[in-house]
Amino acid sequence: MNKKTISHWKIKCAALVSHSAFTYTILGFIMINAVIVGLETYPELYASYQNFFWNADRILLWIFTIEILLRLFAADNLGSFFRGKWNWFDFLIVSAGHLFAGAHFVTVLRILRVLRVFRAVSVIPSLRRLVDALLMTIPSLGNILLLMSIIFYIFGVIGAMLFQNIAPEYFGTLERSILTLFQVVTLESWASNVMRPIMAVEPLSWIYFVSFVLVGTFVIFNLFIGVIVSNVEKTEPKKNEVGGSSEEIRALRQEIRELKTMIHNQSSKIN
Amino acid sequence: MNKKTISHWKIKCAALVSHSAFTYTILGFIMINAVIVGLETYPELYASYQNFFWNADRILLWIFTIEILLRLFAADNLGSFFRGKWNWFDFLIVSAGHLFAGAHFVTVLRILRVLRVFRAVSVIPSLRRLVDALLMTIPSLGNILLLMSIIFYIFGVIGAMLFQNIAPEYFGTLERSILTLFQVVTLESWASNVMRPIMAVEPLSWIYFVSFVLVGTFVIFNLFIGVIVSNVEKTEPKKNEVGGSSEEIRALRQEIRELKTMIHNQSSKIN
Amino acid sequence: MNKKTISHWKIKCAALVSHSAFTYTILGFIMINAVIVGLETYPELYASYQNFFWNADRILLWIFTIEILLRLFAADNLGSFFRGKWNWFDFLIVSAGHLFAGAHFVTVLRILRVLRVFRAVSVIPSLRRLVDALLMTIPSLGNILLLMSIIFYIFGVIGAMLFQNIAPEYFGTLERSILTLFQVVTLESWASNVMRPIMAVEPLSWIYFVSFVLVGTFVIFNLFIGVIVSNVEKTEPKKNEVGGSSEEIRALRQEIRELKTMIHNQSSKIN
Amino acid sequence: MNKKTISHWKIKCAALVSHSAFTYTILGFIMINAVIVGLETYPELYASYQNFFWNADRILLWIFTIEILLRLFAADNLGSFFRGKWNWFDFLIVSAGHLFAGAHFVTVLRILRVLRVFRAVSVIPSLRRLVDALLMTIPSLGNILLLMSIIFYIFGVIGAMLFQNIAPEYFGTLERSILTLFQVVTLESWASNVMRPIMAVEPLSWIYFVSFVLVGTFVIFNLFIGVIVSNVEKTEPKKNEVGGSSEEIRALRQEIRELKTMIHNQSSKIN
Repeated sequence: MNKKTISHWKIKCAALVSHSAFTYTILGFIMINAVIVGLETYPELYASYQNFFWNADRILLWIFTIEILLRLFAADNLGSFFRGKWNWFDFLIVSAGHLFAGAHFVTVLRILRVLRVFRAVSVIPSLRRLVDALLMTIPSLGNILLLMSIIFYIFGVIGAMLFQNIAPEYFGTLERSILTLFQVVTLESWASNVMRPIMAVEPLSWIYFVSFVLVGTFVIFNLFIGVIVSNVEKTEPKKNEVGGSSEEIRALRQEIRELKTMIHNQSSKIN
Repeated sequence: MNKKTISHWKIKCAALVSHSAFTYTILGFIMINAVIVGLETYPELYASYQNFFWNADRILLWIFTIEILLRLFAADNLGSFFRGKWNWFDFLIVSAGHLFAGAHFVTVLRILRVLRVFRAVSVIPSLRRLVDALLMTIPSLGNILLLMSIIFYIFGVIGAMLFQNIAPEYFGTLERSILTLFQVVTLESWASNVMRPIMAVEPLSWIYFVSFVLVGTFVIFNLFIGVIVSNVEKTEPKKNEVGGSSEEIRALRQEIRELKTMIHNQSSKIN
Repeated sequence: MNKKTISHWKIKCAALVSHSAFTYTILGFIMINAVIVGLETYPELYASYQNFFWNADRILLWIFTIEILLRLFAADNLGSFFRGKWNWFDFLIVSAGHLFAGAHFVTVLRILRVLRVFRAVSVIPSLRRLVDALLMTIPSLGNILLLMSIIFYIFGVIGAMLFQNIAPEYFGTLERSILTLFQVVTLESWASNVMRPIMAVEPLSWIYFVSFVLVGTFVIFNLFIGVIVSNVEKTEPKKNEVGGSSEEIRALRQEIRELKTMIHNQSSKIN
Repeated sequence: MNKKTISHWKIKCAALVSHSAFTYTILGFIMINAVIVGLETYPELYASYQNFFWNADRILLWIFTIEILLRLFAADNLGSFFRGKWNWFDFLIVSAGHLFAGAHFVTVLRILRVLRVFRAVSVIPSLRRLVDALLMTIPSLGNILLLMSIIFYIFGVIGAMLFQNIAPEYFGTLERSILTLFQVVTLESWASNVMRPIMAVEPLSWIYFVSFVLVGTFVIFNLFIGVIVSNVEKTEPKKNEVGGSSEEIRALRQEIRELKTMIHNQSSKIN
């Protein structure tokens, strides 16, 4: 097989993988995969048809493997394929399926099979764009997330320090303390389950909880506003439009300048 | 009765149904219907006046039936009547009342009677526009709702897989698992009732819950932002105004061009 | 005392009540009133100094009465005084204090004394404007509040109908049912306390609760968006500015028209 | 050591403290401090290495003291140093460490050590700006916070008055009553734990709770909107742009005026 034949097959392959029928077929298999992992959660069903589920999984894994290989082959080179982060996601999900195939980590393997359902996002372009847009808002939140971490850490350490012996299930260790603060910041049972039993022992502990609720919700709220404002800004197309009209004004000016020149020439002729 | 007479009656009928007094009368009957279904919920009252309630319901059903028939007759043809989706709603609510009249599904029949109260929305134009506006925002959320479904399904399957035996009341089956995730995403007792008892058995389960709370609220939050931004955009009338001023600029340009032609003609005369 | 003397005193009185020292004095008495009603909530304190509290209240009531009378006298006439709704509030709070003075409704009287603290809002102009602004957003929400009421009523009747015997403490009567729905719409214990115990008896009841949570939060969310959008609009000063620039464009056009006339005249002279 | 030498050292010192390596070193020590206070929360670890923790704390305290002294020395004078509120924060945190060093308030001392972690914010410029921006939104909320306090106080007094004997753990004293209202306004267990047990005794108490939830969330919601709107406004750069185009229009007008003058001159020549 010489170079030319390979290139010929490459083009054919690229045409195949970019065809909408190919996408729909893969989407179909992803949905079959989704139904299968859903059915597997019913213990009686899984016990009765264990073989069927095992085989279906092998077949689906190989179908997805072939799909990835075709897309790899259709790409100009390995570099261009792995430049797209969605290709990385597809590649890792499928290759991990092969890696853990013989292993005993049944739970890991099953979670991997469920995560394949998320490939629907990588296959449907509009969903891919949506997730890309969602992920792109995260870096702009970098500073506020860092601030949030510092606040969580400080309150976590103080919480563990003060309430370790009063409420070990909530503030026993630093990790547990930070988890409890996450619960508090979602305002879930922060008073009824967390604060009030501690207040029965340490009456002034309300200062800790009220200040954390105020600071935490205020920072989270500002995080939200940051996202809203940056979104409102992005979607405002007026700038260009106004820019457009100011361009027209510039064109107008040009014409007036030409007028001036014409009149000037006329004047000189009269003289 | 010849065609002309029918057309004559059609016009009279159309005048009737579009009269504000007709609308107010129907609204009045809808409110009487609302009061009656409200009173029916008191068991002692219902037991004592069962006959009255039964008769009132028959009368109201026939009043609404006559109203629909009049509006059907007043319409140019069946097609134009059924083009409006509110007419469909009115028609279905009333005809379902007749269909289930003799049936034994007492609960269905009673719910239908309560749903007639919602006809107030179809009768009051400002409410109808509001509901139309609310419903119209849903299609634009299509992608984010699809993404949300995928996330719910993946976390639902993983939840059922991991916690089926630990917390059967929350993650026993896939359906129950997804319902629990809906509860978690509203942040209701997600930690105190759902996560903490599971964490007592499986200490690492917090990873599942915290990641779902973060992903879930982040996506829902973006769904909300999408609605806000699209609403802010819709209500911004500046585009047209700027557009208007740029049209004026175009008119200005036209005038300057005419000026040029005038001066050019003048110049040629001088020469 | 003739008319002139009255008018003379009226002007002096108007100068007095509009003086900032007068406002600060009244604000001081409102704060004393606030401290007193606060101290009264401590049973031992109230028992020991009952006489002091009783006398302090009488004195404060008469101070506020004199204040209102002075402001009434200072006003041009009764009509102009009662045009301001804050004056109405002040008048009612104080006169109700006299009306119920001898009555046995001790609770009503004490609540009235507490409500006098809210007079701080009517006295501080910036707070008065803020509350006015908050109240002014309510009428624009009229339609969505009406829609919300219809939804609450329909779900309330259906809830009472379906779950009356399963959960009488939540859905026993129509009123209790609507109160429970208010709790559900704030997402408080909607699943853990309300839905799950009912689901144990009626497995399909999740449809009722999930649909109400979705509809309720969606409508409330749109109510919020409506307020945000109308606020953003109000504070956008760009319209006038763009309007301003389009006015300048019109002025420009006028000048060009004058230019044309000049050139036209010139041309006719040359001919 | 004469004045010149001091000034010479001042410049060297200023160069040192403004060097990025200096900042990174201090940030490193802050992170070591953070790790140490975190490890101290584990009782077994603290018991085994008590000496190490004690010494590490002494060393860190002196490092931070030297840092502050260097920055003080590098500043032009004491006044310019204490003008920055972040310098105040650094100074107080460190000097308080010395003040309480020998004292018996172990808890206060430990909390001070944890608060030093927050110095990371004062050292990282982007975080400092973020916190400055967050704090700057508070004064603009002054009025709405004052209104909120009045509402809390009024409802707090009424709550203590009405439910003191029914639910002493929630409304026993005025302070407890206001804390309960804070819990209610976060919507945490407001119905299940607070309202419903009270309603069992006093059926009409729902009026108090529902009205507080409505008023409280409405005011808080408006507080949020105020922040959003003021943020959206701040970030809108369009005003200047539109202003720019209207300036161009003014320039255009100037040119047309010049044109007029030219034509006028021409006309007079022809005559």
